[in-house]
Amino acid sequence: MRPNERFDLNNLTPAQILSLGYLVIILIGAILLSLPIATASGKSMPFIDALFTATSATAVTGLIVENTSIFFSIFGQVVIMVLIQIGGLGIMTMSTLFAFLVGKKITLKERLIIQADLDQFQLSGLIRLVRYVLLVTFMIEGTGALILFTRLIQEYSLGKALYLSVFHAISAFNNAGFDLFGNSLEGFTGDITINLVITTLIILGGIGFAVIAELYSGKRKFKDYSLQTKLVLSVTAFLIVIGTVVFFFLEYSNPETMGGLSFGKKALASYFLSITPRTAGFNTVPTGALKSSTLFFVIILMFIGASPGSTGGGVKTTTFGALFAVVYAMVTGRSDVELFKRRLAKEVIFKALSIIMISLLLIVAVTMVLTITENMKFLDLFFETVSAFGTVGLSTGVTGELSVIGKLLITITMFAGRVGPLTLALAIGRKEETANIRYPEEKILVG
Amino acid sequence: MRPNERFDLNNLTPAQILSLGYLVIILIGAILLSLPIATASGKSMPFIDALFTATSATAVTGLIVENTSIFFSIFGQVVIMVLIQIGGLGIMTMSTLFAFLVGKKITLKERLIIQADLDQFQLSGLIRLVRYVLLVTFMIEGTGALILFTRLIQEYSLGKALYLSVFHAISAFNNAGFDLFGNSLEGFTGDITINLVITTLIILGGIGFAVIAELYSGKRKFKDYSLQTKLVLSVTAFLIVIGTVVFFFLEYSNPETMGGLSFGKKALASYFLSITPRTAGFNTVPTGALKSSTLFFVIILMFIGASPGSTGGGVKTTTFGALFAVVYAMVTGRSDVELFKRRLAKEVIFKALSIIMISLLLIVAVTMVLTITENMKFLDLFFETVSAFGTVGLSTGVTGELSVIGKLLITITMFAGRVGPLTLALAIGRKEETANIRYPEEKILVG
Ligand SMILES: [K+]
Ligand SMILES: [K+]
Repeated sequence: MRPNERFDLNNLTPAQILSLGYLVIILIGAILLSLPIATASGKSMPFIDALFTATSATAVTGLIVENTSIFFSIFGQVVIMVLIQIGGLGIMTMSTLFAFLVGKKITLKERLIIQADLDQFQLSGLIRLVRYVLLVTFMIEGTGALILFTRLIQEYSLGKALYLSVFHAISAFNNAGFDLFGNSLEGFTGDITINLVITTLIILGGIGFAVIAELYSGKRKFKDYSLQTKLVLSVTAFLIVIGTVVFFFLEYSNPETMGGLSFGKKALASYFLSITPRTAGFNTVPTGALKSSTLFFVIILMFIGASPGSTGGGVKTTTFGALFAVVYAMVTGRSDVELFKRRLAKEVIFKALSIIMISLLLIVAVTMVLTITENMKFLDLFFETVSAFGTVGLSTGVTGELSVIGKLLITITMFAGRVGPLTLALAIGRKEETANIRYPEEKILVG
Repeated sequence: MRPNERFDLNNLTPAQILSLGYLVIILIGAILLSLPIATASGKSMPFIDALFTATSATAVTGLIVENTSIFFSIFGQVVIMVLIQIGGLGIMTMSTLFAFLVGKKITLKERLIIQADLDQFQLSGLIRLVRYVLLVTFMIEGTGALILFTRLIQEYSLGKALYLSVFHAISAFNNAGFDLFGNSLEGFTGDITINLVITTLIILGGIGFAVIAELYSGKRKFKDYSLQTKLVLSVTAFLIVIGTVVFFFLEYSNPETMGGLSFGKKALASYFLSITPRTAGFNTVPTGALKSSTLFFVIILMFIGASPGSTGGGVKTTTFGALFAVVYAMVTGRSDVELFKRRLAKEVIFKALSIIMISLLLIVAVTMVLTITENMKFLDLFFETVSAFGTVGLSTGVTGELSVIGKLLITITMFAGRVGPLTLALAIGRKEETANIRYPEEKILVG
């Protein structure tokens, strides 16, 4: 960061820098994917489809208009893999930075400017942090790939097994959900190794770097952890358990999903199904064959999503936890909103509320336009929209059949779902205490 | 309120008193409706259906399992009409009382106890208020019935026209949505008199008694009104305009709804369709024939609902307005949440948030159970649930085909939708500042 770049930075907000960065990467990816060498057939794909795929990969969403394993060449697949890694790392690094800045009075922009100006130590601290994120990412992905390899070598040649292991370890840890098997992980529904490795990678990628760092810091007792870590771990555990139980009962006798499996494999498939909506997007049972009730529950999990400072999307586990704390405080008549014997700041509660409301508004608006432009079932379109917004990538199978407007809309939703909540959080963090007039308070009756 | 009743009151919270009162009225109504004389055929209806109908009438919802005009005898219809009037007046009186208590430190229960103990003047004040509510209600209903009569006398005999006028004026002002034409107001799609009278009754019944009182108080300028009134009027106007425009475009060429109408009648039908979801429940075009996009927009309006202190349901216009103010404040980086140059109190914002969240949770839970128990389309069940919760009464036509569990669930949802938000508001108003420990504040990252 040279001093002469300082004025440009000064003109752009961090939110704009982030969005612009993503946009540039997506456009480069789209151009590469629209080249003839990117496809197996050697014929270039329509630009709207290339744009859709590049956005889906960079936003680590995983919605696809073409089967990744069949349609793309190795070149195309590697482009997708690199986009996933850049997208996942980018969001993880950026949001981890923000996570470490939480509670500090200065904004990232101010910090960047400060660093450019005077504070060499701070800058080296940031670089150290980014290096640490990279190191942990590659260690986890490497370990995951290694274990996947021991299983896949039983079915594939050495080179193919290695390639598949690396691709899926990256795709899982970055919560991208892209696969090279053609039918996601439906060929491994009851496979314990694949299921446990993939779900563990998803969970580690989804709980956020700050939590991983704190877990690794040597603190032994739960009560010693920060509120953030306590909340992330509790909500994550809660959602996994409740999801597993609910899906097990709802799909128990569905012949098209897990009806034909043994008791243990039903439990495994339910466990996988409870983890993948937040927000990996792999599937071991066909999503389109799930019951309406199951799909609706999946939608809720997709909306909640993963944890801050992670590769996952959604409104985030902490947002969800904060809301429950607010509702609990209200119902029990307390004036303080409390979680694990800590008081939540008013700003945090407002931020959580705003994120949920704006997300709901976006989903409602997109779903409504889709119900106009597409001639498809409401639940499928609703599902697709939440999946795109939460960068999940699960689909009941309508993605490829969307109209051009539909594809464009889902592309924008993926982009908004990726950079949106974060930039929103940023924008909100940047309080302008410049209002000179403070209006008198007046009550209204709600509800 | 005799002194010897004081100890009972002391043991029950106002929320419990309200719920219990409604429950007793519903049970009496259900018993009356299950009598043979209540039906046109002279055969008694199943108790679950009688319970459903009594709940629907008392909660001024309007969902029906049997056609009111054909299935019930005059006796049955009058029972329904009386239940509507009691239910509508009850909720309006109770919530108006709360509206007038807003901003005061003491709770209703305390006030009731105080009145029983010492304060004869206060009690007479309450009685005067209730008498005023009754007077205004009957005046508006009477005027509405009179105008309806001038139109209906052209089609029906004197007695029948009178009966129909009174019934529908009551049903419209109380936002009940019950009708005696058999197909709601589908026979009057382009009828200006009927449309304007019914929509005006719906709007007056839905903006809340406190607002009516303030409009009638002689204040001439908008800026002199209270924040509550400004907010109710603005949100109501905004939703009516936006709804009319959206429905006009969405249904313009739908042959099953308004495709065959003239331009003016399309506008009239759109206007009616924008008003009836909040939360009257009449329809002039067949609800089941509306497009998915239209149904989804109707769902949103049904969720928002009418205004506090009114006969309408939903989370209320002020709650919706407060939320937008919060989101606006967040996005623009202001620390105060402002509306019309007034600052919103933290408690009000929390209350609004809690009401929305708990309502969403209830709707999600009920919809999910219905997708398990009923073999129907997701959108129809979602629509039915929001309609029941918002005490709207619109249906795509599935009500009569619900299973017993489904009927029971919708019955409970209607009840919860009626007393729920209000008791919640009450419970939340009753702050217990008894917590001795105030925990230290800790920030978390959301979004
Ligand atoms: K994903
Ligand atoms: K109604």
